[in-house]
Amino acid sequence: MQDSLDSESPWKASADRQTEREAKRVAVLRTAARAFNEMGYHNTSLDDIARRLNVTKPTIYYYVRNKEEILFECVRIGLEMLDEASNDVSGHDGSTYDELIAVMRKYAEIVTMDFGMCVIRVGEEPLTEESRRTLRSLKRSIDRKFRRLIERGIEEGSIAPCDPKIAAFTVAGALSWIARWYQPNGGLSAHDIAGQCIDLLMNGLGKAASSGDGRPPT
Amino acid sequence: MQDSLDSESPWKASADRQTEREAKRVAVLRTAARAFNEMGYHNTSLDDIARRLNVTKPTIYYYVRNKEEILFECVRIGLEMLDEASNDVSGHDGSTYDELIAVMRKYAEIVTMDFGMCVIRVGEEPLTEESRRTLRSLKRSIDRKFRRLIERGIEEGSIAPCDPKIAAFTVAGALSWIARWYQPNGGLSAHDIAGQCIDLLMNGLGKAASSGDGRPPT
Repeated sequence: MQDSLDSESPWKASADRQTEREAKRVAVLRTAARAFNEMGYHNTSLDDIARRLNVTKPTIYYYVRNKEEILFECVRIGLEMLDEASNDVSGHDGSTYDELIAVMRKYAEIVTMDFGMCVIRVGEEPLTEESRRTLRSLKRSIDRKFRRLIERGIEEGSIAPCDPKIAAFTVAGALSWIARWYQPNGGLSAHDIAGQCIDLLMNGLGKAASSGDGRPPT
Repeated sequence: MQDSLDSESPWKASADRQTEREAKRVAVLRTAARAFNEMGYHNTSLDDIARRLNVTKPTIYYYVRNKEEILFECVRIGLEMLDEASNDVSGHDGSTYDELIAVMRKYAEIVTMDFGMCVIRVGEEPLTEESRRTLRSLKRSIDRKFRRLIERGIEEGSIAPCDPKIAAFTVAGALSWIARWYQPNGGLSAHDIAGQCIDLLMNGLGKAASSGDGRPPT
């Protein structure tokens, strides 16, 4: 009885209001990330973001304090998505080799999405030293996970012996670069690009794999 | 006689003055690139650059108009160095495979140097649309050269059949990323990093090459 009375109130329950506010805040951030990715951070004003959302600038200020906070949140969300990519695939039955490929696939997918793309296209550079420090520690966590997977793969014998630090950066670099050149309406889907890029990283550009002697034909 | 009289003049010959001015201008640009790479473009002021050069800000203005012009020139010089990387190695006797490796090596070397690093760490984002257009066309030229080399390698049979566009971006991404994480005084030399990164790109992270069957052991 109490419940049904509550649900008929013209005022939303506090929890609902909170959820709605959070959804709108994410919409502001996502629209901003898209604008930053398309036009650049410094060429995007809060007015541009408000216009894209069909609201006024004061409405934006209800959800965020300023442009710096928006960028910080966009990059933080993107980095947390990338950081969680490895959690989502861990614990499955495949080899470390398969697990690495699954994490790479997730990573490539995320950098073609609004927040992930913002990490690469804009990044933390325009922010204060304190904000950058927070975001850089998230980056280190992502890097550590890649390194550990590669280390385990080397121990397991499925990854070629190499310096895990350089291998992790090589993988992250190639996959992150997708965010720089990928065009959502281009000829190639994000899924296909990821697949081909990962194939090149795992098997190499040289024809060594197919000739079987570890050296290209001369 | 005329020449020796000239050389004793307390005023420098016009050509000498021109050369000296140009050398000083490059010093301003290089110092700025280094500051941008270390502290970020927006966190670097003309005063910071002047201080590093032991001069006053008006002296800086004698060589460049403003901070935007400095960044434009730094990125332009870096991109031209990258663009010329392939010219420097072309025409030698090796296979396209060897030529590709030589270009990759040059590319990796340049992105660990002041202007090349500035291309990756800062880039053209803070500049006007017109400046960005000029710089993007230089980027396309570099990309085209990588693609053509890869296409030739595929025809020659030394590069695995792949989409040259994706392969060129994979290579450029992995190599460019070095500029993001390389530390001049870190434990690894730029030369070693380049060598290992290129080896991974050519032979792959997977153990396919050594097992010879194109698949990792399971």
